[in-house]
Parts: sequence; structure tokens; C-alpha cells
Amino acid sequence: MKVYDKINLTMLCDFYELTMAHGYFEKGYKDRVTYFDLFYRRCPDGGGFAIAAGLEQIIEYIQELRFEPEDIEYLRGRKLFSEEFLDYLANFKFTGDIWAVPEGTPVFPKEPIITVRAPAIQAQLIETFLLLSVNHQSLIATKANRVVRAAEGRTVLEFGSRRAQGADAAILGARAAYIGGCNGTACTISDQLFGVYAGGTMAHAWVQMFDSEYEAFKAYCEMYPNNATLLVDTYNTLKSGVPNAIRVFNEVLKPKGITKCGIRLDSGDMAYLSQKARKMLDDAGWTECQISVSNSLDEYIIQDLLRQDAKIDMFGVGERLITARSEPVFGGVYKLVAVEREDGTVEPKIKISENVGKITNPHYKKLYRFYGNDTGKAIADYMCVYDETVDDSQDMEIFDPDATWKTKRVYNFTAKELQVPIFQNGELVYECPRLQDVRAYCLEQVDKLWDEVKRFDNPHTYYVDLSQKLWDIKYGLLKKNSSYEA
Amino acid sequence: MKVYDKINLTMLCDFYELTMAHGYFEKGYKDRVTYFDLFYRRCPDGGGFAIAAGLEQIIEYIQELRFEPEDIEYLRGRKLFSEEFLDYLANFKFTGDIWAVPEGTPVFPKEPIITVRAPAIQAQLIETFLLLSVNHQSLIATKANRVVRAAEGRTVLEFGSRRAQGADAAILGARAAYIGGCNGTACTISDQLFGVYAGGTMAHAWVQMFDSEYEAFKAYCEMYPNNATLLVDTYNTLKSGVPNAIRVFNEVLKPKGITKCGIRLDSGDMAYLSQKARKMLDDAGWTECQISVSNSLDEYIIQDLLRQDAKIDMFGVGERLITARSEPVFGGVYKLVAVEREDGTVEPKIKISENVGKITNPHYKKLYRFYGNDTGKAIADYMCVYDETVDDSQDMEIFDPDATWKTKRVYNFTAKELQVPIFQNGELVYECPRLQDVRAYCLEQVDKLWDEVKRFDNPHTYYVDLSQKLWDIKYGLLKKNSSYEA
Repeated sequence: MKVYDKINLTMLCDFYELTMAHGYFEKGYKDRVTYFDLFYRRCPDGGGFAIAAGLEQIIEYIQELRFEPEDIEYLRGRKLFSEEFLDYLANFKFTGDIWAVPEGTPVFPKEPIITVRAPAIQAQLIETFLLLSVNHQSLIATKANRVVRAAEGRTVLEFGSRRAQGADAAILGARAAYIGGCNGTACTISDQLFGVYAGGTMAHAWVQMFDSEYEAFKAYCEMYPNNATLLVDTYNTLKSGVPNAIRVFNEVLKPKGITKCGIRLDSGDMAYLSQKARKMLDDAGWTECQISVSNSLDEYIIQDLLRQDAKIDMFGVGERLITARSEPVFGGVYKLVAVEREDGTVEPKIKISENVGKITNPHYKKLYRFYGNDTGKAIADYMCVYDETVDDSQDMEIFDPDATWKTKRVYNFTAKELQVPIFQNGELVYECPRLQDVRAYCLEQVDKLWDEVKRFDNPHTYYVDLSQKLWDIKYGLLKKNSSYEA
Repeated sequence: MKVYDKINLTMLCDFYELTMAHGYFEKGYKDRVTYFDLFYRRCPDGGGFAIAAGLEQIIEYIQELRFEPEDIEYLRGRKLFSEEFLDYLANFKFTGDIWAVPEGTPVFPKEPIITVRAPAIQAQLIETFLLLSVNHQSLIATKANRVVRAAEGRTVLEFGSRRAQGADAAILGARAAYIGGCNGTACTISDQLFGVYAGGTMAHAWVQMFDSEYEAFKAYCEMYPNNATLLVDTYNTLKSGVPNAIRVFNEVLKPKGITKCGIRLDSGDMAYLSQKARKMLDDAGWTECQISVSNSLDEYIIQDLLRQDAKIDMFGVGERLITARSEPVFGGVYKLVAVEREDGTVEPKIKISENVGKITNPHYKKLYRFYGNDTGKAIADYMCVYDETVDDSQDMEIFDPDATWKTKRVYNFTAKELQVPIFQNGELVYECPRLQDVRAYCLEQVDKLWDEVKRFDNPHTYYVDLSQKLWDIKYGLLKKNSSYEA
């Protein structure tokens, strides 16, 4: 394994995590056990769900958590922290519990993707990285899943490294895109690190390097007869590129009995050019030649191209995927939901807001997904207090937490807990699945959602309901705290 | 210095760089000297210019370029590459020349931010990382500069780590935002690595952790009397947060004779709340208490808030800066512009496109900026062939390369070459300035642009002209290549 995933990113935290940690340390809250939920509030691009991703990097981060002497030295230089606190940091280790939904799981607004139970300082300190990792990779996995669904079974490759927001965005973006359903990437190191198949053949520079396009194509086919996808738009796609490609396929591949090859279109109108190129290739007998396209694609353009009967076998999706250009922020947040009293009882906490949508679901919770036994489809998600259990052998009535008069009866269903234990008392108790399995799990779980939830625009809102007990606790806290004497 | 900047990212390249490199190797183009320009085509957000950034990380990347045995092993496993080529890679070293405009320089579309002169394989292989680094950091520096200009001299802090697209996006994004003019960041490690001042005080969790907001504020002011910025919106800003802040300032800070303190608003209407809070603070005698705000800000909202006479001293700008949310892609490209023949003559190359805007400026070039001697302002940029020199002791007539009948006479000006040598024969010949100096240089150079160029929307298009010789070469290549016999 390369060094890449071994970096200690302990100091990648908002500075206020440290001022607060110091405060907890000095004010006697150091060992106070706290519960934090990581959740998001709104699906990107107006979609109906998101794909959770980024957990594996969080696990590595937690395992590498430590303050090096140079970190302590830097912090001492800030002249804000006591020596006792710096000593504490020098011996810092994560000792808490973490639960999370597995990577690749479709998740809905307001449900806990990750729950942390840990002493206040520890839980606080990891906030920035946990958010950053989930926000980034869930953003890209969610976008990739949209793109892949738009492509209706055609191959989708992630091609955006050069426009990514930094090296991590390229490397882990390719990983997340694969989780969301992409078939591969252009990014070599993502293949090496994660087994995300990396492919690619030539850029315009290859064509320009030779005295003619024909010579460039011929040289390429001679070198890579089994991997010959030729970029045909350097000079003129239909007048020069495609005819030269066909000529070279005839001269180099045909004598070898090779029928599989490809061309790539990187500019111009993809619907028109792909149809014309398809006809030229078919007329020349190259019916197995695949047509790839790669020019500022996203789910909307792909949908339109297929509606216009473009003859495309493979989409190379670049900047609009790797940056999630149409909505490049996944607004995950990390909120205190409970603290443990000294006697071990769990006291729920809430964050009020003028904006009703920003009010948190308090308490240490369980998250269930209900699947219909007849259809296999996901019916609803359900959050309850940690000490409640769902009995799926019985019918149940659930209700909309924002409009409590809207109820729904669920029957003949199987309730599955979505979060699994990741760390217990600081020890890793979870084995990350192979990335190929994460991707397969993601596609399988997305398949369990009704089509209504999967519409790109204005999808049906999936039910995410609260138990009566949890709702009562939330309502009680709201009434108590809105008196402004908190 | 931390380990962070020592990672070998050689394998962070598009896979086609390797297939092409192998092709050049096998087809006798290994030592053919090539020239590539890195440039961008369009300013993000419809602005008038961009801020170049990302060079320091490119320098580190070039210095660390090498294929490790595990990299060679991976490549061998792909069964595409000859053993001779793998041997070559195992001993790979960059031996070429690189010129670049210094970080912090305002740059305009189509002018070379970086020029690489190197054997084909080397120049090709570094494409992905060069683009990635410039595209990411220029994007953020450019956005930050817009935000900073909107704030009209008030403090702007980068607060977006948790919503960044990966760890690099957070760490180097904070660096780029600082270059563009931000005063600091929330990201601790960016301070440690680059000296970008990191600040921050408390999150909502701090307030929730205590039995009351008053106790939370009091504990904080006791710990950090000289750094007391209190987050006042956990329960209710005007009914609870600001009154509790004033009470604690009176109880804890006043007896110590401290008059400097702050409050932070993180939700609700910033114009209304800041005016109300300002009055409450002033009435209580806390006229030096600074008001910070931090809720989904960008240059447009900041402009509006200031127009509405919001009483804000400091802006914490998060997700919309760190992702450049309104336009999260900086479309830099890297194009072959010339090759050297065996006799040493430089042969210009061009990339044609159906889209006229995508046609490249061929050849190994020089880039000048002309400053008026009377005003000190930048008048125009000027590209010429490498063997031309501008004599700024004479008047000059320049013309618009897209509309050649539009001419402009420049006189009493100083011509300054924008690119400086970075590597010569693979050796670093440039010393990166301190980041504080990069930031100061950026702000000074932006100040040399006329206000018309700095408008956020529909700015005046700055002149970027070609010499007559360069234009003639470009036009000749266009005519020659558009016959489609290339």
C-alpha cells in the first residue's frame, strides 16, 4: 500500500475545536461522555436521496489520530493553551465508540450517517475531518449515481482529475464516483490504491506530435491493437478523424483479426457526430467499434443525448462529476445530541434555530430501514431512542414528524438497523469491505428504492419518521428551550 | 515542516499520460523536446481576471517526481508496457525547463500561466498534476479575491474546511484563499504549514454542553478573556444570546479593563440582527465589541449586506468560498504549442477546434504586461514569439487578435515580462516567496487593474494581444490545417 493513506491529519481541524477542547479540559468536562450525530439536511441537486461515502478514510484518520511533538510546539506557540492541556494532547488517543451506515448506503436527510459516543474533547476534535470526509465523498458518490442512472447501463468513466479541487479530490473523488456506480476512472493512482479500474488512451498532444493524424493513429494502433480508442477531433471529426481511424483500423487491426476498437469524441455536437460516426464505422464494417464521448457531460446532458438517439457506448465524465459542479457542497453537519450524566443516564440535547429545518433530532438514537417483504423495496426509515426496539412481526403505525396527522400503516415488513459498530472503546471492530463490494451494495440498495424517489427533479419525499417516544422528547425540549432561559 | 508536503504524487496522472509516454518511448519521440502552455479560457463567475496560484505545490511535486518499485509493479501488472519503458520510468527524473507567472499574479484568458519545455514523455506525464494544482488554487484564490473586494476592507476569514472537497481542498484551499486576500482561516494545519493565521472560538456544542448559555459564555470568557468571541445564536440571538454576552462581558471582562471582544451571528437575517445587536452592545458600552457573521456568505451577499448598512466587522466565509460554489471549476488546459526539430529550430503547433474559442495560441512565447508610467495601472498584456523583444522606450500599436481592425496605441509605458524561470534543466532556480509576500503582491497587482476590469458582472475585457509575428504564424497554421489533410 502506498504512503498516501498513512498521513496524520490530526491537525486538520477547525481551530475552535482546540479552544473548546481546552475549555472542556479546564472546566471539568474532559471526561463527560457526549453523543454527536453526523447528518445532512437537504439532498444535492434537488434529488431524493444521497449515497453515504467516506467512512474508510475516517477509520484511517481515527487510527492515525495523534499529536506529534511539532504539533504541540505549534500549539504552545499560540499562547492560549495550558501546559496540562498540551500534555493531555501529547498522549491523546481516541477511546470512544463510533457507529455508521456502511458506505454505499442510500441515506436521507436528518438521519444519522455517523454517531459518535466519546468524551467531549475527543468527540469535538474529530468533527472537522469527519464532516470533510463524508461531505466530500458522499457528494461525489451521490452525483456519480445520478450520472450512472442517466446513462442507463452504458459505461461511465470518471475523467475529472485535472479539474478536481486538489489531489484528494481527484484520488478520493474517483473512489467515491466508483462507489456511486462509475465503471472506472482516468486517475492512475486511484486504481493503484483502491482498485478502481483506470483507463485511457490518448490526448490531442499525441495526435499533434506526429506529422499527420493518420501517422499518429497508426502508431497507436500498432502499439495497442487491443486497446485502440482513437481521439478523432483534433482537426475535424468527420472529415479527418473518423476516416483516418477507419483507414488505420483496416490497415492495422483487420489483418490481426481484431474487431474491438473505439473512437472518442471530445468536442462538437455529440448527438449529431455520434450518429454520423456510427454510420461511417458501420458502413466500413466496424460495427463493434465503440463510441466514447467526453465533453462537459453530466446527468442532464446524458439524458438529453440518449433521448436524441445519440449512438454512444461510453461516457467520460469530467469536471461536472469530480466537482459536483451543479451543486458542489454536501451540507453535512455534526451536532451534539446527548450527554451522559455521571450516573450513566443519557440526557438528550437539542439545537434550536429560527429556521425550523435546522432544528436537530435530539438523543442517542437507533436508525431502522423498513423493507416490504412482498416487493423487497424500502418503505420508510424510522428513528427511535436507543433503548427502543422495533418488532417487525407486528403491523406498525408511523407518522410524519413535521405533520403528525399524516400517518402510515406498515405491515409485512422487515426492519433492518442501518448503523453498524465501527469503533468500540477506541478499538476498530469493523472490516471495510472491498471497494467492488461497496459499489455492488450501493447499486443493489439504490435498486430497492422506488422509482418515484429516484427522479432527478421533484422526487417523492421518502418517509423518515420518528418513534412516538423520540418525538415526545424532541417536542418537550423545544417547548422548554424556546422560553430563552437556557 | 510536516510530512504533508512530502508525498510523492507521481502516480496521480491520467492513465493516458502513461500510454502516450510509452508510445513516445517506443516510437522514437522520447527525447523530442516539446513546449506546452498551461492557460485558461474563461474567467469564473463572469469576472474580468483570475489570480494565479498553485505553483509552490507544483515545485514540490516536480522535485518529488519518481516511480517507486511498487509503482513499476502496478504498471507491469497492467500488461501494456514494455520492460524497457518500465526501466526508463524506474530512473525517471524531470530534466526540463519550466517558466511561470508568480503566484498571486492577476492573469487573463489564453495567456500562459506556465510554460513547460521538456522531452515529450516528461512534459506529458506532469500534465494532470500541473492542471490540478493550478486549477484548484487559482479557482479559490480568484473567488477569495472577489469576496475580499466585496468586504471593502473588513476582515474576511476562510471557514470552509468541513465542506471542502477533501483534505487538500481544505488545507490548500485555505492557502489559496489567503493569497487572494483573506486575513486568515479556521483550518489549524494551514496555519502550521503555511503561516495562514488560524482562528476560532466556539461552536454551538460548547453552548449546549453547559447547563445554560450564560454559564457557557462565562466559562469561555474566563478562559480566553483576550479572545472572547461568543456565538450568540444557539437559542435566540436577540432575546438570549446578545443579553447573555453583554452580561458576561460586564462580569468577566470589565473588571479586567478589557474592552475588545466579539460576538458571532451564524443564522437568521444578518442585516437586521447585526444592527440590533450593534445597538444593544453600544448601549451597554461595548462599542469595541466586534460583530462577526458566518452563514452561507459569498461576494454577492456581502455586497448586499453592506448596502443594507449591516453592522459587520468580520465575515467568516465557508462553503461558498472553499468550493467556489457559484462556479466550482477553473477550466485550465495544457496544450502542446511547439516541438523542437533535431536542428534546434522550434516548430509551432496548433490545436484546431470547431469552437473558435478553443483554438490555441501556438509557439514558444513571451508574455508581457504593459503598465502606464503616469498611472501605474496595467494597460494591456502582450504575447510574442520567444525571439521577439518589446522596446518600451518607443510607442507601440497593438491590435485585438480576434478583431484585427481594432488597434490601440500604447505610449509612455513599461513592459514587464510576467513569466519567471522556475526550473532549468530540471534544477530549481526559483525561491518561493513567503506566503505573506505572495498575498501582498496579489493585492498590490489587483490594485493596478482599472476598476472597470474588477466589476463582478460584465467587466471590461482587458486587452491580451498578440505580436504581428505571432498572429501571422497562428493564421498560417490555421489556414494550413483546416484543409484536413493533417
